Amino acid sequence: MITGKNYIGNVLTSVGENIFKTFNPEQNKENNWLFAEATKIEINKAVELATEAFKVYKTISGNRKSDFLNEIANQVLLLGDELQEVYCLESGLTKERFLGERTRTLFQLRSFADLIKEGSWVEATIDVGNTERKPNSKPDLRKLNIPLGPVVVFGASNFPLAYSTAGGDTASALASGCPVIVKSHPMHAGTGELVASAIIKAAEITKMPNGIFSNLNSSGIEVGQLLVKHPLVKAAGFTGSINGGRALLNLASKRKEPIPVFAEMGSVNPVVLLPNALKLKAETWAKTYANSITLGSGQFCTNPGLILGLKSEGLSTFIQNLAEEIVKIEPSCMLHPNIIGAYETKKNIVVNEEGVSTVSAAKEKTGVNYGRQLVTTVNGKTFLNNPTLHQEVFGPFSLVVQCEDIEELKEIISKLEGQLTGTIISEDNEVKNYDEIVLALQNRVGRLIFNGVSTGVEVCDAMVHGGPYPASTDSRFTAVGVNSIKRWVRPFSFQNWPNELLPNELKNENPLGILRNINGVKTSEKID
Amino acid sequence: MITGKNYIGNVLTSVGENIFKTFNPEQNKENNWLFAEATKIEINKAVELATEAFKVYKTISGNRKSDFLNEIANQVLLLGDELQEVYCLESGLTKERFLGERTRTLFQLRSFADLIKEGSWVEATIDVGNTERKPNSKPDLRKLNIPLGPVVVFGASNFPLAYSTAGGDTASALASGCPVIVKSHPMHAGTGELVASAIIKAAEITKMPNGIFSNLNSSGIEVGQLLVKHPLVKAAGFTGSINGGRALLNLASKRKEPIPVFAEMGSVNPVVLLPNALKLKAETWAKTYANSITLGSGQFCTNPGLILGLKSEGLSTFIQNLAEEIVKIEPSCMLHPNIIGAYETKKNIVVNEEGVSTVSAAKEKTGVNYGRQLVTTVNGKTFLNNPTLHQEVFGPFSLVVQCEDIEELKEIISKLEGQLTGTIISEDNEVKNYDEIVLALQNRVGRLIFNGVSTGVEVCDAMVHGGPYPASTDSRFTAVGVNSIKRWVRPFSFQNWPNELLPNELKNENPLGILRNINGVKTSEKID
Repeated sequence: MITGKNYIGNVLTSVGENIFKTFNPEQNKENNWLFAEATKIEINKAVELATEAFKVYKTISGNRKSDFLNEIANQVLLLGDELQEVYCLESGLTKERFLGERTRTLFQLRSFADLIKEGSWVEATIDVGNTERKPNSKPDLRKLNIPLGPVVVFGASNFPLAYSTAGGDTASALASGCPVIVKSHPMHAGTGELVASAIIKAAEITKMPNGIFSNLNSSGIEVGQLLVKHPLVKAAGFTGSINGGRALLNLASKRKEPIPVFAEMGSVNPVVLLPNALKLKAETWAKTYANSITLGSGQFCTNPGLILGLKSEGLSTFIQNLAEEIVKIEPSCMLHPNIIGAYETKKNIVVNEEGVSTVSAAKEKTGVNYGRQLVTTVNGKTFLNNPTLHQEVFGPFSLVVQCEDIEELKEIISKLEGQLTGTIISEDNEVKNYDEIVLALQNRVGRLIFNGVSTGVEVCDAMVHGGPYPASTDSRFTAVGVNSIKRWVRPFSFQNWPNELLPNELKNENPLGILRNINGVKTSEKID
Repeated sequence: MITGKNYIGNVLTSVGENIFKTFNPEQNKENNWLFAEATKIEINKAVELATEAFKVYKTISGNRKSDFLNEIANQVLLLGDELQEVYCLESGLTKERFLGERTRTLFQLRSFADLIKEGSWVEATIDVGNTERKPNSKPDLRKLNIPLGPVVVFGASNFPLAYSTAGGDTASALASGCPVIVKSHPMHAGTGELVASAIIKAAEITKMPNGIFSNLNSSGIEVGQLLVKHPLVKAAGFTGSINGGRALLNLASKRKEPIPVFAEMGSVNPVVLLPNALKLKAETWAKTYANSITLGSGQFCTNPGLILGLKSEGLSTFIQNLAEEIVKIEPSCMLHPNIIGAYETKKNIVVNEEGVSTVSAAKEKTGVNYGRQLVTTVNGKTFLNNPTLHQEVFGPFSLVVQCEDIEELKEIISKLEGQLTGTIISEDNEVKNYDEIVLALQNRVGRLIFNGVSTGVEVCDAMVHGGPYPASTDSRFTAVGVNSIKRWVRPFSFQNWPNELLPNELKNENPLGILRNINGVKTSEKID
């Protein structure tokens, strides 16, 4: 049941007077639930509870934390049809999408549960002391990763489950040993509350300290600002726009004690179509990209918003086919009038820039909040000289840049801002002849894809979801996959510490049986 | 031979008009060499060369980069007596200290050489694809760490070798594959130039691209500011004051593209004397700490500037013995009149704060730039209420805080700023009874030491040199040990990339024989 209240730890409260509703874009009307925005008092209380809970939570074993994460997955699943219904009402997304996103969310929770149950993720590193060493005895040093403290997680508009309340940021932070305070996304506050109730229930069942998790409603930017500025908050995770992410980074940087903000932000995900691929498979790739551009109404951070090719017959064929394919696809509902409003605005800006022409656009008549796809084209020189064209248009949009020659293509790539992904479309390994293109693209992205599409972000150890700014605020971390846990931990050393007082991960006996680095060698052995 | 010029890549230039000299604090007079501060043109040239060199350097094998680092060590050693002479003339440090610091510097260079020769440091992670998976085929994803790009390294005043031109930051950045531009420390510009000449010679011998390394003279803060603001610079490493490090962090955060700044800054390195240790070994620990406080005239970031104990007979004995021991120690020369000036100023501020009393001070008559040690004391309540007393006094200084009870001690620890180290002095494992003290201290530091001193930072895998702000600007990294390489790299994924075009670290055959994570299992095996 949705109460519209905030979870301040285990307690539901609503002392604030700022009430808001969510919106059903499919039916173009507000939903009925009333949500109370968290007040400053509630925010402070949540952070203070998290700080207290941290003292206990950081000492809880990996096994017990693992049980907690698995129980969250169980409880989210138990929300059943109610969650699906609210999810769809608040996002305009389909039931199929709900099921897929829920599967992903549960998989993420269970992946982190497995990771911390196994335990080697702390990167235990031991240099055994030697009192005989000359001229100075060698101290005994033992290092492991420890959690930073309370983490603020911002729900994302486009993933009400997988990148929101119990999404990747929350799962990774809780796994690391950090309490989490979620700033719920205003567009799906009801979905957020339901998922929060599952987390709270799981925390109670597995006897986690009160304050390990809070869920705060917000209608605008104030709640998030107060959270990031709070002296007891130690890190923040965000998925959303460049403006939003940068504003949080700026706030965090100005604090007396600056804190890490990992923001995964905008990206146009450049795709480079190599000449032979265009010559031989222009039609196939056009069809593939028509689907990728419009998937989920283009509301993915990995949406292919920029397609680069050399002027040629093949490229013309590609553009023509893309034009034909893309109008065949039925427009679908976008998340919110604000999202479609921003999409329309940005689309119009691009279309009205000099030298940009429309290749193909979806028909005018469609559902009121439906995203009408648009493909545009421009020549390389115009693109190079117009930074406006480098910006993301969030929605089912793409810009095909027709380059004069390979040098221009290389220059364009090297002048792009940082991106989540870059894709090379190649035939018969022609990519071998384009070393410089590949290196230039690698310099600007976090993930290079060969003959595929950038949409679809596999949750696995080898995934990098992040990239040079502004794809993310710190390219040294990924937001997807178990390695995303590294955002919330710091290395910590014990020097000459008594064995029996060390954490289990560092004890001579290796009671957890984890893989450790001992005197430079990776081993699961104990120390004699 | 010292020319006073800047190395802009392999070329010595001095187009600027701002000329400065270094200072011999032992003889209290300027040294003769004239140094030309780098101009904006030289700075830009160095960064542009580094950017060009990066394109080549990032593709050079670990073996060849390893040869380069080892050759730097060889060439630094070949500088022989000239380096020693200049080092001593510019720092007032002794020949013995020179020898120790050089050994440390060479060890660091060779450690990184070994690391990258072996190759597993890239954390190669492979999730093999599966086209049979339902409902969607699983892409093949392969991840490794790649270098960020040109790194600016700031020389530290207190380590002309180990944390300067060819110190830990430079060695780790070069090892990672990043070109380095050193902003030489003005107090030891001659030492810096000599070491730079060794790096350049090594680069030439091992055929590294021109621009892989530059060394820029600076008399003030402008050169460093211009470097950190330069759009082509991708990261910075700094060791020094909180003001200096924070200013750089602020500049980096305001850039259009923010970059990581790892600054290792101030620390008072709190030491907690537990009651039984005081009762039984007050004299021994007093002697040990008298030595630690005055080691190298207290010019270490790990100097024990804050000693905490419970009011007791034992603590009084400790203070009395510390007073007696510390005056026995001969003062030694500090690095520079500016350093001793700051020391005297900060010392006087503390002494004049209400409630602070002097326990013991070195005799007035001593060498002109010699640091006269000072130990002061204050009660817990006064300390708690006066943030001035929490600040570092860089030099042979310590403040003993006499706490009323364990609660007050805990409160003091929890209100300290972030620290590099914390130390517990315990007898008969009495520390077992002080869980909360240990946890509180762990929360504020990067390294916990048992029954020892914080001075002396072992270079090894398990070392953490860093800590919560302001000990460092990002506690998620260490500045010492081979793991410090992680500051300069980002994870990068290849998706469905042709095997023959992957970097060697990710190829099926595992030609480098490195340890990799394949489908969640650590192995050196190839993939069939």
